Order: sequence, then C-alpha cells, then structure tokens
Amino acid sequence: MEFQPLYLKKGEERRLRAGHLWIFSNEVDIKRSPLTDFKAGAPIAITTSNDKVLGTGYVNPHSLICGRLVSRDPSYPFGPSLLIHRIKVALSLRNRLFADPYYRLVFGESDGLPGLVVDRYDNILIVQITTAGMEQVKEAIIAALNKTVPGHTIILRNDTPIRHLEGLKSYLEIIQGEVPETIQLFENGGYFNVPLMEGQKTGWFFDHRLNRARMQHYVKGKRVLDVFSYLGAWGIQALVAGAHQVLCVESSEAAVNFIHRNTNLNQGIGAVTALHGEAFSLLNALQADKERFDVVILDPPALIKRKKDLKQGLAAYRRLNELAARLLTRDGILISSSCSSHLQWDVFRDILRRTGRHLDRTIQILEQGHQGPDHPIHPAIPETEYLKTLLCRVLYRG
Amino acid sequence: MEFQPLYLKKGEERRLRAGHLWIFSNEVDIKRSPLTDFKAGAPIAITTSNDKVLGTGYVNPHSLICGRLVSRDPSYPFGPSLLIHRIKVALSLRNRLFADPYYRLVFGESDGLPGLVVDRYDNILIVQITTAGMEQVKEAIIAALNKTVPGHTIILRNDTPIRHLEGLKSYLEIIQGEVPETIQLFENGGYFNVPLMEGQKTGWFFDHRLNRARMQHYVKGKRVLDVFSYLGAWGIQALVAGAHQVLCVESSEAAVNFIHRNTNLNQGIGAVTALHGEAFSLLNALQADKERFDVVILDPPALIKRKKDLKQGLAAYRRLNELAARLLTRDGILISSSCSSHLQWDVFRDILRRTGRHLDRTIQILEQGHQGPDHPIHPAIPETEYLKTLLCRVLYRG
Repeated sequence: MEFQPLYLKKGEERRLRAGHLWIFSNEVDIKRSPLTDFKAGAPIAITTSNDKVLGTGYVNPHSLICGRLVSRDPSYPFGPSLLIHRIKVALSLRNRLFADPYYRLVFGESDGLPGLVVDRYDNILIVQITTAGMEQVKEAIIAALNKTVPGHTIILRNDTPIRHLEGLKSYLEIIQGEVPETIQLFENGGYFNVPLMEGQKTGWFFDHRLNRARMQHYVKGKRVLDVFSYLGAWGIQALVAGAHQVLCVESSEAAVNFIHRNTNLNQGIGAVTALHGEAFSLLNALQADKERFDVVILDPPALIKRKKDLKQGLAAYRRLNELAARLLTRDGILISSSCSSHLQWDVFRDILRRTGRHLDRTIQILEQGHQGPDHPIHPAIPETEYLKTLLCRVLYRG
Repeated sequence: MEFQPLYLKKGEERRLRAGHLWIFSNEVDIKRSPLTDFKAGAPIAITTSNDKVLGTGYVNPHSLICGRLVSRDPSYPFGPSLLIHRIKVALSLRNRLFADPYYRLVFGESDGLPGLVVDRYDNILIVQITTAGMEQVKEAIIAALNKTVPGHTIILRNDTPIRHLEGLKSYLEIIQGEVPETIQLFENGGYFNVPLMEGQKTGWFFDHRLNRARMQHYVKGKRVLDVFSYLGAWGIQALVAGAHQVLCVESSEAAVNFIHRNTNLNQGIGAVTALHGEAFSLLNALQADKERFDVVILDPPALIKRKKDLKQGLAAYRRLNELAARLLTRDGILISSSCSSHLQWDVFRDILRRTGRHLDRTIQILEQGHQGPDHPIHPAIPETEYLKTLLCRVLYRG
C-alpha cells in the first residue's frame, strides 16, 4: 500500500496526540497537501507541520471528517494484515465476554477500525461499511473476516443513510454463504427470530443487552408497556422475567408480526398485546382511556439525528417522557432510553427532572445504563458513546 | 411543630422550584429573616420574596447550606408523620429490589430525607445523621424506624467528619437492642463478616453491589489484584467467580484480619494473599518485582474530599491509575472506581485516556458503573451522584 502524505497545519496534531482518530478538513495544510489531490478513501500518512508522521489511515476529501487515523505504529500500517490483527483482538474480547456467538464483533473506532461495524449471528456476519476508506479495502476486510472467523455467511448491509456523508451509495450485498430469512437468537432468557435483510439497522440491537437484563429485575408481576417495541426484545424479556401483562407499541406492521412470532417462540410466558401505530398518538390514546402501567419502557429511535435537530429533538424527548410518566401507576418505574449521541447525559437527566416537576411527581434515578461491552467506548472519542438508559422510580407526591 | 418563616431574596426560589432542596446562606433575605434569629436545626417555612411558601424544612445558620427543603406539600409538612411516610416509601423500594434485608434503607435527599442515612443489616439499623435539622428530630427518627421496621437494634454512627460542617459533635450511640461484634452478610455469592462499630463509614459499601457483580464476569481463571481491599469485598467475590489467584492490598491491619477471616468463611474458593501497607508504595513495589495481573481493581477512598483538593486529588487519581495499568498483562482489565462526587464523569474518563496515551496502551471502556439502586440519584441534585466505576480493557500497542 502506498501512503500519500496528508499534512496538518501547525498545532493541529494536538487532538490526534491526545488519542482521537479524526481529522477535520480545516485542519489540513491544503497548500502542502491539497485535498483535491486525494482520491476518496485513499490511504494516507498523517504528517505534522514539522514532518513527523503520526500514523497511517485514510482520507476522504468530500467529507467534513476528511481523514481517520487507523494505526500509530509505523511497523504495522493500515492495510490487510492490520485488519486481520484488529479483528482478532476484537474477537478475543467477545470470546471472553459471551458464551454464545451473538454480538457486535467490531465497533468502529473503539475497536481500532474506524468506518467498520460487524455483527455476528452465530455463523452469519453482517458487515456495515460507513467510510470511503473502508469501502476501498472491502476485499481485504472480507479476506480478514474469512481468516479470523472462517466459513461464515457474509452480508454487506451498506444501506445506512450515514454513507451519504462519505459520498457512498447505498446497497445490500450477499458476499458468500446461505442467507436464511431469519435467524434465531437467545438473549436474557428469551428466544427471538430476527430478520436479517429487512430488519432495522443490522437486525438486532445487541447494545441494550445489559439494560434489558437490569429491566428484568423490576417487572415481576407487573403490567408493562413497551414503546417502540421493534421485534419485542424488551416486552418479551419482561414476560420471561415474570411480568403479568405486556403491551407493545410499534409502528411497523412487519415488526408487529415478529412480536407475535417471537412471543409464540417462548413457551409458557403469557401473551403480549401489540398495538400497531405511531407511538405519540397511541400514548395519548392510552392516556385518554385512563390506562395505567406499573412499568413503562421507552426505547425510541434517535430523536436527535443531527446536531441541528437538537432543539426539536429535545422537545420530542420531553413530550415522550411526560406522556410515559403520566401512564404510570402511583409508584411506577420508567425505563427511558436514548440512542442519540447528541443527547448528553446531563441533559437527559434534566429531561427527567423537568418531567417530575411538570407532573408534580418525585423521580428517583435508580440505575443508569450504557451500551454493552461489545460496543466499547474510546476514551478519547466521546462520539463513540451514544446509548443511555435511565431507570427511574416515579412517585406521586405525598 | 412551629415553622418560622425563612425568606428568600427575590428570584432565589428558582433552584428550589427546579427541584433542588438546598438553600445557600447568600440566598436568604436577612433583612426580613436574619439568620441569627434561628436556632441550628429549627423547622422553617421556606418563603419567596412575594410571600409564597414553597415548603417546609429546616435551617442551620452556621452552615453554607443554611436550609434544606423537606416537604413541598402544605398538608404534609416536615415532622414526625412525614418521617414515617418517607421511610415507608424508601422501604417499599428496597423490599422490591432485594430478596434479603441488607441494603441502604435511606439515602438522604434522594429519599426525601436530607441529612439522614440508614443502612440495614437484617435486624440491625445503622443510622447516620449529618445535619442539625435531623439531629433536632432524632427522637422522631427513632420512633419512625420503630414504627416502619419494628424490633431492630438501632445504632447511631454519628461519627462522620461532615457533621463538623453543621457544628455537630461526633458520637456513637447504641439506642436499643443487642450489638454483635460483627454481622454476616451475603453479596454476589460470597459471605462476609462486617464489623459494625469499628468499620469504615457505616460498615459495608452496599453502593458497589452491582459493580462487583459485573466485575465477576471478567475474572474467571485470572490473576487479580484488589487495591484498597478493606474487608475483601472485591477480591473475595472475584475468587467466588472463579479467579485463579487474588492479591489484596490494604492499609488497615484490622481490615487485613477481616480479609483472612472472610476468605475462610467462603469454603472452596482458594486463597487470598493480603499485603498490609500503603497502596501507592505497594503498587510501586509490585512493579519493581515485575509482578503482572490480568485484572486490577482500584477502589480508593475519595481522593478529592473537598473542592479545593481538586488539583492534588486529580494528580493522585492519575498516578494511581497509571501504576495500576502498568501492572497489567498484555490484554488486561482495569476496574477503576472513584467515590468522589467532585470528580466528574468526563474528567474520570479523561484520566483513563491520559493513562493510555502516557503508557502507549490502547484503552477501551467496556462498562460504566454507578452506585446501586438503594443509593438513588435525585435528578435535580447532581451532588447525590458520587460513585463511578470504569471497567476498561488495556491493550499493549500493536
């Protein structure tokens, strides 16, 4: 591999030296290395103004994040053998953590592989490439996966909208192997059928595994409302843990069918009722009907997708949490999540504080949950932390 | 009870309206209600500049936090029956959470009882009063406990240094019942003898229960170093979870004796070695001896006790985490805690980032742990959150 030098302006190496992996386009010395000279995804040697090479990585002149550092080690530059090594290191963590091969195997920057996500469902790998640099080495990624976890079906789910930021087109490709319509997985005591090709994102949200496990401590004998259910992960795991009754709210008809299918898959757990429709209107309708629940679970999609949606998104989180809190019994539990990295922890906690004050309820935050350990956080890259769960007790005043 | 009005200056009710419970002395309208007119601990009616009563609570003219709001409900003011009610509400949460009666029963502000902490060890209650307002109603607190959890031994461990801030003297008093030298408790699969009268704080650190449970997922077959062991909670629970070997480091000789005693209490878990001495020097000595561990656990006392100790305390946390990371094997786990509320989450994560950069190691934050649900967080009072655990993977570069 040939590494074209990308020169940084004076002082702009500071964030990289502190551990971060991103280069923004305004940090590049475009006199010495005009961005127009680079092909999208080309390998680069990231170089300071005084000609020190910080490491190797890749460039994308069309993106705001115009470069990513992959390796600081001059003897081990970005390339096919580094990919193998990094995937092996990622695999060894998951082998240590999980008895069964169902997890996120590679989580981008946090596993030293910016722009690459790999989910593993037993012998099926779902790969998602989000940068031009990784797209350029697609063949090497596949070879590396075949070397580290041989004989697997490999599916490229390159249909995420964030690829547009890198000028990449959206596609879905079966690289090798058999692709069943669904796979079956086991999580926190429950069995689930998961659609691989038509499901949301890469199919299953492994990131909530530990949060759902904690939820199970609060639902025995309770009436539970699971909002934004998708395949029923929360609701069905609540039943597995002894919930008395579960109502799921889900806007996709296909997902509602999976909720029923997944309920049937788990014998002797009692029935789930699934309402098909838009969450905010259904919560309002439940309120109008004076329905009450002991536990309400909110696991919405990112309501703040981009920074500029902050104000509107915050208002949506507030509305949603208030609607949910209103539906609780006198001493209820609200399990509220956000997967938006733009929603800071303190702002999220403040939404709960406001909810309490508005409704004149006392709120106690009992637990704070994060993305699971197969989604590690890079200590220099706050952007790698996105998932937040607040498990709260909501008391009527008095 | 007679509630003397405490008048706030104009606008100074904002924080209270937002949910907080504290009044600082500079917020009081000392013309209308001179602080010198109040007896330390007297009950007050907290009143805005335009004569709205926000609620009832208590005052301490000698303290920076000169007042605390206890009840917003005019029909249910601060007093004996409110104490009973709040303790009942606190108890119902713990009954829901824990199979066995070993937990923090009351956690101050977060349970609506500022200045009061109660730990429960089966039929023994350890009570800690930290404000003059609660000291004034000591008899009512004891009556309320006898009403909600009757027939318990009650010990007042009013020997915490923070009582000085309120001008309260330090004492230890057995109110009623038999006091055994130690009690036995069970946590995460291990049995422990805990000294009630001579132990640290209120005896056992219930707050780390969930963090120790997560630790157990990382230690099977591993060599573990447990620094600041106290009674051996982490180290012995590591052995229970299958650790191959555990070395404890502890500065108190009495605690070292308990580590041995508690190890013997758990049959068939293998041996713990306990080093008696100061943590920093012992870590340096282990480094000099080229000792290596697969997992290092750091659970120091608060290294930043007061805000003005921030700089020095941060340096201590940094030194400690670096010393620990150096002692790890190639792909080790560092479980690092801080119980200082003055150490913010992002600053703590940054200590780990720095450690990684200094030692040229790659650090992945796998899990973030908090104080357990019997130490709830008040969403309007960030000061009620203090415990932080970072569970990290530390990789040699390459």
